[in-house]
Amino acid sequence: MTKDLVNKKRRVHFSPDNIDIVVDEGANLLQAAISAGVRIYASCGGAGTCGTCKVLIEKGRLETTRTAKVSDEEFKQGIRQACQSRVSTDLAVYVPVESRLEKAVLTRENREVPGALATGWRFNPPLRKFFVELPPPTLEDNVSDLSRLLRGLKQRYQLSNMTVDSDVVRKLPQALRDNDWRVTATTLVTAAKTRARDKRRLGVTKVEPGDTRDKHYSLAFDIGTTTVCGQLLELNRGRVIAEGIAYNQQIGYGADVITRIAYSQKPGGLKKLQQVVVATINGIIDELLTQGRVSAEHIGHLIVAGNTTMTQLFLGLDPKYIRLSPYTPVANFFPPEKASSLGVKVGQSVYLFTFPSVASYVGGDIVAGIVGSGVYQRKELTLYIDIGTNGEIVLGNSDWMVTASCSAGPAFEGGGVKHGLVATAGAIEQFDINPSNFKPVIGTIGGVKPKGICGSGLISIIAGLLEAGVIAQNGKFNTGLPTKRIREGSDGYEYVLARAPETQIGKDIVITEVDIDNLMRAKAAIYAGYQTLTRSVGVTRSDLEQVIIAGAFGSSMDIEKSITIGLLPDIARDRFIFIGNGSLLGARLTSFSTDVLDDARRVAGMMTNIELSENVDFMNSYIASLFLPHTNAGEFPSVAKRLAGNQSKLRITV
Amino acid sequence: MTKDLVNKKRRVHFSPDNIDIVVDEGANLLQAAISAGVRIYASCGGAGTCGTCKVLIEKGRLETTRTAKVSDEEFKQGIRQACQSRVSTDLAVYVPVESRLEKAVLTRENREVPGALATGWRFNPPLRKFFVELPPPTLEDNVSDLSRLLRGLKQRYQLSNMTVDSDVVRKLPQALRDNDWRVTATTLVTAAKTRARDKRRLGVTKVEPGDTRDKHYSLAFDIGTTTVCGQLLELNRGRVIAEGIAYNQQIGYGADVITRIAYSQKPGGLKKLQQVVVATINGIIDELLTQGRVSAEHIGHLIVAGNTTMTQLFLGLDPKYIRLSPYTPVANFFPPEKASSLGVKVGQSVYLFTFPSVASYVGGDIVAGIVGSGVYQRKELTLYIDIGTNGEIVLGNSDWMVTASCSAGPAFEGGGVKHGLVATAGAIEQFDINPSNFKPVIGTIGGVKPKGICGSGLISIIAGLLEAGVIAQNGKFNTGLPTKRIREGSDGYEYVLARAPETQIGKDIVITEVDIDNLMRAKAAIYAGYQTLTRSVGVTRSDLEQVIIAGAFGSSMDIEKSITIGLLPDIARDRFIFIGNGSLLGARLTSFSTDVLDDARRVAGMMTNIELSENVDFMNSYIASLFLPHTNAGEFPSVAKRLAGNQSKLRITV
Repeated sequence: MTKDLVNKKRRVHFSPDNIDIVVDEGANLLQAAISAGVRIYASCGGAGTCGTCKVLIEKGRLETTRTAKVSDEEFKQGIRQACQSRVSTDLAVYVPVESRLEKAVLTRENREVPGALATGWRFNPPLRKFFVELPPPTLEDNVSDLSRLLRGLKQRYQLSNMTVDSDVVRKLPQALRDNDWRVTATTLVTAAKTRARDKRRLGVTKVEPGDTRDKHYSLAFDIGTTTVCGQLLELNRGRVIAEGIAYNQQIGYGADVITRIAYSQKPGGLKKLQQVVVATINGIIDELLTQGRVSAEHIGHLIVAGNTTMTQLFLGLDPKYIRLSPYTPVANFFPPEKASSLGVKVGQSVYLFTFPSVASYVGGDIVAGIVGSGVYQRKELTLYIDIGTNGEIVLGNSDWMVTASCSAGPAFEGGGVKHGLVATAGAIEQFDINPSNFKPVIGTIGGVKPKGICGSGLISIIAGLLEAGVIAQNGKFNTGLPTKRIREGSDGYEYVLARAPETQIGKDIVITEVDIDNLMRAKAAIYAGYQTLTRSVGVTRSDLEQVIIAGAFGSSMDIEKSITIGLLPDIARDRFIFIGNGSLLGARLTSFSTDVLDDARRVAGMMTNIELSENVDFMNSYIASLFLPHTNAGEFPSVAKRLAGNQSKLRITV
Repeated sequence: MTKDLVNKKRRVHFSPDNIDIVVDEGANLLQAAISAGVRIYASCGGAGTCGTCKVLIEKGRLETTRTAKVSDEEFKQGIRQACQSRVSTDLAVYVPVESRLEKAVLTRENREVPGALATGWRFNPPLRKFFVELPPPTLEDNVSDLSRLLRGLKQRYQLSNMTVDSDVVRKLPQALRDNDWRVTATTLVTAAKTRARDKRRLGVTKVEPGDTRDKHYSLAFDIGTTTVCGQLLELNRGRVIAEGIAYNQQIGYGADVITRIAYSQKPGGLKKLQQVVVATINGIIDELLTQGRVSAEHIGHLIVAGNTTMTQLFLGLDPKYIRLSPYTPVANFFPPEKASSLGVKVGQSVYLFTFPSVASYVGGDIVAGIVGSGVYQRKELTLYIDIGTNGEIVLGNSDWMVTASCSAGPAFEGGGVKHGLVATAGAIEQFDINPSNFKPVIGTIGGVKPKGICGSGLISIIAGLLEAGVIAQNGKFNTGLPTKRIREGSDGYEYVLARAPETQIGKDIVITEVDIDNLMRAKAAIYAGYQTLTRSVGVTRSDLEQVIIAGAFGSSMDIEKSITIGLLPDIARDRFIFIGNGSLLGARLTSFSTDVLDDARRVAGMMTNIELSENVDFMNSYIASLFLPHTNAGEFPSVAKRLAGNQSKLRITV
């Protein structure tokens, strides 16, 4: 994994989607599929343990790690686990229906979908298209153009009680006569909160001449503090046509929400931040349309989820009071408005649905994740964790949900760490240590020479160092060990992960006591948040039936090692599920189902936020968590047992 | 009345409105009140016969014609009929509550209002203001600003299920904190068609710091082809604060709807016509705000009624197909939109409600008139006539309504008549003839020297000439009479109404056979429309229980003479009621009552339009009506009897 690969380009063709993508040789096939907008179901997050991402290689070769999940017969047929495969040549890959995320979800109506996804919803997008052939007017039937259209929609599709955009009315005479009274009307569910599903209020947002039902698309976006992800969705069959991701251009104005809010208070600051996030979105839209070969005029809806600050900045709502006690957002739900009025490069007819939020630090991204993962639908007690600069935690089930946010700091995203790096090529993400000579074994993203450490790498490193006795449970180095890897550097004691000649940066890559301290504070904040929430409702670790881990970071994280350092609770490992970008998942499902759209606001309303910033229980938990894994060994019985075993082994070895 | 008055200015102060107006000496006091925006109830239209416009003269003198409607005691107290009084000096006039149109209507909840006005509606304007004092946020209660507002409105006023404009959300943090969490929220009923009145959907359109409930205004407009009338309304007590009228600036692009539509088809034509009518409205708004001493920011709603073409031009909807068979309008009901988006100079929060229409030639002005006059509420069979360039006729009651439009031509507005004039100062509006020497007695608007003839003058003149035998029932002059007043002019035979020295224009004012012919065609069109409608539903003249006459023209028209020429049906005179500008009346009542707003759309939907343009029965009726009063004397029994009497008298005299 560490050898330097020549940066050769390889083309991968995915069927039945008929999508091509060009990737570097050696690229992970699951990642390539996701980048291409081909959604493969990978419930374990690419760890190779669930076996749900099997694909059929029709042409070409790849380098694959075989696991017990692929039978001999399957292997002979050419079936491989995408997550365990790296691209060697140009490829033709067939994704069978059982491995397709969307298909699996969309076709299993009213049946439970394995893993952590919302269930029981119908495929009924809030945006729909209806084609009608109207009788031309006569002296005996000279009702208005609009009445004729509405009458036609009522007769053919039993649609009634509809509102119509003034812009639609203005263009109607031409649209009706351009193709001999044959038109396609686009309708959108406008009511944010509907009681009776069959009495929903529909709005006519567009009328096009002729039959345009086959041009029926929408956009789903997750606006993150660091990255913005978008998907182009086809609404007739519920497919992801293209996916795009870009750094949020607001990064230039501050790395986290607090610095962004500070910038927004400067003259013109709010407007600037609004403009650059819209520019980011517009850039992704351009890319999605090109990738999907779709014309902008056929986009009919936009659904956006983001944390509270990102949402307010996108909508141009002053976030000033988010960072001032008592931390009030402007709004938790947002009126539908024209996306173009915010500067988004879509047609005049496109309405924006913004995911509702819960509180200043529990935003629409979390609500979308809860909606997308179906936590609110199940009786099982679930812990939902979205780990990023802020850790957001939700605890509950279909009856109740409590939520909290804890400022983890940027360690998990590589910030505040001497050689920290976001999860890009060259970032150390895997680590093991030889307990006899304390030498490291590292793996990097892309398998290239290392240039730093990403969040999941940090977890692996600290867990490995702890288990090997290189650091003690207080995070301090055991300086008495017989290895030159531990040394004193400019920031105090440090451990050398890679020597200068082995790196891209030409200098030693190390992890310092300060780095470890930062990570301990970050994991302590999240664990304390989890503890405060569970205690507040009187449940314990063993009551948790499911733990869902969301966030881009989540998918590459090692559960065992995360438990070892005390980030995740010490419970049965099979209760953990990764869902990747939960926010985008929720936005997408909402685009596909009005049932889910209806649920979104209800779910936001049923979440009770517990403010941790001045909470004494949280502060006590936090201090108790500043230990590896925890000052109270009883919180981590399996880790304590293993560490005790290691200690005795180490004592023997040394 | 014909003597030349010195053009002295007199100030009239009206209480309790506390409104001043400066008028010419000799001005009619009722007219002065109306111009000042003081609405006096005058059900007979100023004829002096109903006695509802009594006022108390507190200071100053006037020239008054005393009728039996004022008792000796009242006369001693200083009570006069406004319509019978002309201003001689500066005046202080008190308008008692029983004479006030608005007050009378507004306070008689669920009681029948005398005359032709909608009844049974509550004073509950669609635009409302609610003041709340909110608890400032704390760590224990840090819901969003919007949730705090909505919670406050719910707790204090039981308002729920509200939508909020995105613009309101954007300004909310500032508005809430500017006056220590004390704010006034403006709400508007947004649903156009509501089934359950108590389940109406409210939209929050504005939030202002502090208590601004006393600044609560809206605008009502009638957009006519010739003139645009507006009223500034105070919504706490339901008063008209100011009234303004101006020529529709579209006149420069065509005198009637057909020429306007033609102009709209030129490049940029539609946009131009839209701009100039908006400019007209903006001019009136400026005037209303100045008159009423109201700031533009306190206007919260705009209600507009107009004929179908005027409505479409105002909204920027292409009217092309209105004039092409089969005459289809773009829409009969119009989505609410921001008035500012059309260029109207009001705040961003002001929504426009546009009256729904019935057909291409039966517009929102007629629907507003029917709503305002309450025709749709009563069991009595009512004929509603709006006379202008187009005559619109509605026949029906609370169970059913049929409607038709007939092109009368511009004669009633002074068009196509040699000395025709719109109803302004100097227009001859009264006429009598001395049957012995055929000399005229004329009365002009404002009592100044004549300069032309207005519509009501034309009716008086033709009726007088007919009764005196100067013209025959076919509209031709009786050239054998011993008078020089009948002579041959450039347009054929004519009758001299005023000699050059007696006029403002320095030449003889005459009425010609061509003029008479034009008026006969105009009145024939309206009468034939009325006949076609009554026949289509199988009722006759004697079934009519009420005839409501609307239109600016209506209020100065003489019923007896209108019947004499065959314009109005020959039924008991006490069944006729004038309501003046019915369109503006409806727009105003709708501004005052959500009940009426709800009714508007329902009423438009219950009116069945009968297309006369290619209707054989209409054509036959029209031809039969080209006679004074009608070829069938049985249609006008009282006129036939009187004319027969006159003939015998004339024969004796001559």
